[in-house]
Amino acid sequence: MPSAEDLDLADPLSNIREQFDLPSDKIYLDGNSLGALSTAVKQALTKTVDQEWGNDLIESWNSHDWIDAPERVGNQIAKLVGADHGEVLCCDNLSINLFKCLTAALEIQSPKTRVLVEATHFPTDNYMAQGLSSLLGEERCSVEAVAVSDLLTTDFSDVALLSLSHVDYKTGELRNLPLITAKAQQAGALVIWDLAHSAGVVNVDLNNHNVDMAVGCTYKFLNAGPGAPGYLFIAKRHQHARNSLPGWMGHADRFAFEADYRPADSIRRFLTGTQSVLALSATEAALSLFEQTSIGQIRAKSLALSDYFFSELNEHSATKPISVITPRDHDSRGSQVSLKLDHAFAVSQALISRGIIVDFREPDIVRFGFSPLYTRFDDCHRAVRALADILHTGVYREPQFNLRKTVT
Amino acid sequence: MPSAEDLDLADPLSNIREQFDLPSDKIYLDGNSLGALSTAVKQALTKTVDQEWGNDLIESWNSHDWIDAPERVGNQIAKLVGADHGEVLCCDNLSINLFKCLTAALEIQSPKTRVLVEATHFPTDNYMAQGLSSLLGEERCSVEAVAVSDLLTTDFSDVALLSLSHVDYKTGELRNLPLITAKAQQAGALVIWDLAHSAGVVNVDLNNHNVDMAVGCTYKFLNAGPGAPGYLFIAKRHQHARNSLPGWMGHADRFAFEADYRPADSIRRFLTGTQSVLALSATEAALSLFEQTSIGQIRAKSLALSDYFFSELNEHSATKPISVITPRDHDSRGSQVSLKLDHAFAVSQALISRGIIVDFREPDIVRFGFSPLYTRFDDCHRAVRALADILHTGVYREPQFNLRKTVT
Repeated sequence: MPSAEDLDLADPLSNIREQFDLPSDKIYLDGNSLGALSTAVKQALTKTVDQEWGNDLIESWNSHDWIDAPERVGNQIAKLVGADHGEVLCCDNLSINLFKCLTAALEIQSPKTRVLVEATHFPTDNYMAQGLSSLLGEERCSVEAVAVSDLLTTDFSDVALLSLSHVDYKTGELRNLPLITAKAQQAGALVIWDLAHSAGVVNVDLNNHNVDMAVGCTYKFLNAGPGAPGYLFIAKRHQHARNSLPGWMGHADRFAFEADYRPADSIRRFLTGTQSVLALSATEAALSLFEQTSIGQIRAKSLALSDYFFSELNEHSATKPISVITPRDHDSRGSQVSLKLDHAFAVSQALISRGIIVDFREPDIVRFGFSPLYTRFDDCHRAVRALADILHTGVYREPQFNLRKTVT
Repeated sequence: MPSAEDLDLADPLSNIREQFDLPSDKIYLDGNSLGALSTAVKQALTKTVDQEWGNDLIESWNSHDWIDAPERVGNQIAKLVGADHGEVLCCDNLSINLFKCLTAALEIQSPKTRVLVEATHFPTDNYMAQGLSSLLGEERCSVEAVAVSDLLTTDFSDVALLSLSHVDYKTGELRNLPLITAKAQQAGALVIWDLAHSAGVVNVDLNNHNVDMAVGCTYKFLNAGPGAPGYLFIAKRHQHARNSLPGWMGHADRFAFEADYRPADSIRRFLTGTQSVLALSATEAALSLFEQTSIGQIRAKSLALSDYFFSELNEHSATKPISVITPRDHDSRGSQVSLKLDHAFAVSQALISRGIIVDFREPDIVRFGFSPLYTRFDDCHRAVRALADILHTGVYREPQFNLRKTVT
């Protein structure tokens, strides 16, 4: 195995790392939760705030085309996930966008009412489905949770839609999107994928696999900032459906201020209210970094980083026996590695105290996220070395690492 | 009448104007549409971006208390609108928040299904009610539009809820919130007020008048930036209702990642997904300016500005005959003056070309907004003088002022 130094020297993405403002005293392995700040984002925000808002004020809705930002940024995302121009909107947050997709899918599938959700879905996705069922009643929307491992033998014949995650947020497992989509669709179900942990690091190829709808957020691997906007993808063939949250921004003629709703004849009908221009400006700039590379190149580095991380775990007697819950198979791996550890919370705190920023997930998981635009092989090397030392010395048993507080 | 200069010299809010970054070549009278940028907002954004996101990264959710921003900023808004601590959340946008209020109110009022909406409501409010009716069916939510002038003689006896605007966005008319609320409630209806054009410039006093629910945005008189977040007020007595958009941020224990939704026992249950931290940081800073004054003082200046504007209209033969559709009565006036003009679009463009920033609303209205934290009496003086000249010379007839484009 080449050294971390050699791997970093040979990394074709190393020049992109230089465009991020990373703190010098940290090794940041939590880009799967919150992506890092780039110079492009800082510059865009300064321009949007000082020039566009501060000086040009209301005229910027036209002169700086604020009004089309949700579609413009949506089209940037479309390129990353294999969607066409006019199939993605950047707006609201993932939960709200999922609500729009769920209701649109149920309308298309009427009179079917069965909604299957992944049992291990990111919680908010299932809460939104449960909420919709409460609102509409069981007779119009009944929600059942299924194990992903059962999906290839599930009978989808009376299922309206399936909602699941492309990458499991806890284990880092990448699901077989082509196969699951085809299986559900063969029986007439629609499929809504949550791309929060796959967009920007995995080949998603939505249209190549005939995906119906998808949602995601931009604050993880897309580096658009804390709480940055979500997005939705609705395949062209489904864009006739209604938006159940039909605000003025989705009206055919927004500034005619008509009394009755009349939807735009495009993806724009799935907009609701006014979107944060500052947040969209940051997102647009963050996405521009992806134009310097390709998802193929990013994916190759992502797999190389996690492969290297696995090999490093084998280098230390303290880390070799750790239970790795992330699949070793490339085809089943996202861009994080999750370790199942006794005292996982305390170990995560001990790592953080050494500047190795990872995160903890209940009840016993430590996640190491690899964001190929800025993560180095040397970061993996140092993280595993620190982990080995923490486990070997038992320093994680110290009281300060065992104080539970709000975790993110 | 004292001169504009004297009025500005005597203005107790003049020191707050100095805290805004207003362009020197414009007279900005569109703060009712997009508020101006303040130094406090610029500084807050720089800190949030560079220090909190850039350097402290994921830890900022705890260390800089990003996680509580929707409640913290909500509590700032509560002070401006006469709500209690724990009754307002700053999140999403006005349309989405209205959807949450409409569904919560219908749940509380079950089995009543009649929803009355103001015929002249800001369009998005009525689109959201129409969308809810489409989603739930007429039998569970039937929407009827009523004229505001008919409200005091309307029979509310089987009405579930009334949704209307505190200030009319076109005419600038301020509605009688205490009387309308009491009238509807006497017959058992709930009332949801849209405060978009009143919060920050009018005494709203929600709890003094026993208001049930309210929604608003922060990008107008609250100066929080383009597309800044919305907010919702739900009186404590109604906070047992369900959130129909129940995302993880409203869960009782957000980071337990439980399979089933369990609502927080507070206003927080009305949160849905993750909110833009950048947008909330700007909003928090923008609202901090209001701590230097009081709504009473702001309202006094607002009325003085529009009174002065009216008196100036009388000073010129070209402006004296203009039809003013904003009520002259203080009790019925918000913080804008709307003029009904032939060639209104062209006149608005001619004003803008002279740096007098106003806006046009279909079909024949020019709006002049007064934002007391930064609008000067001299701005009113110059705006009317320019208007008089434009009308007198007929310059608005020139072709460049008659090119219709997207309007905001």
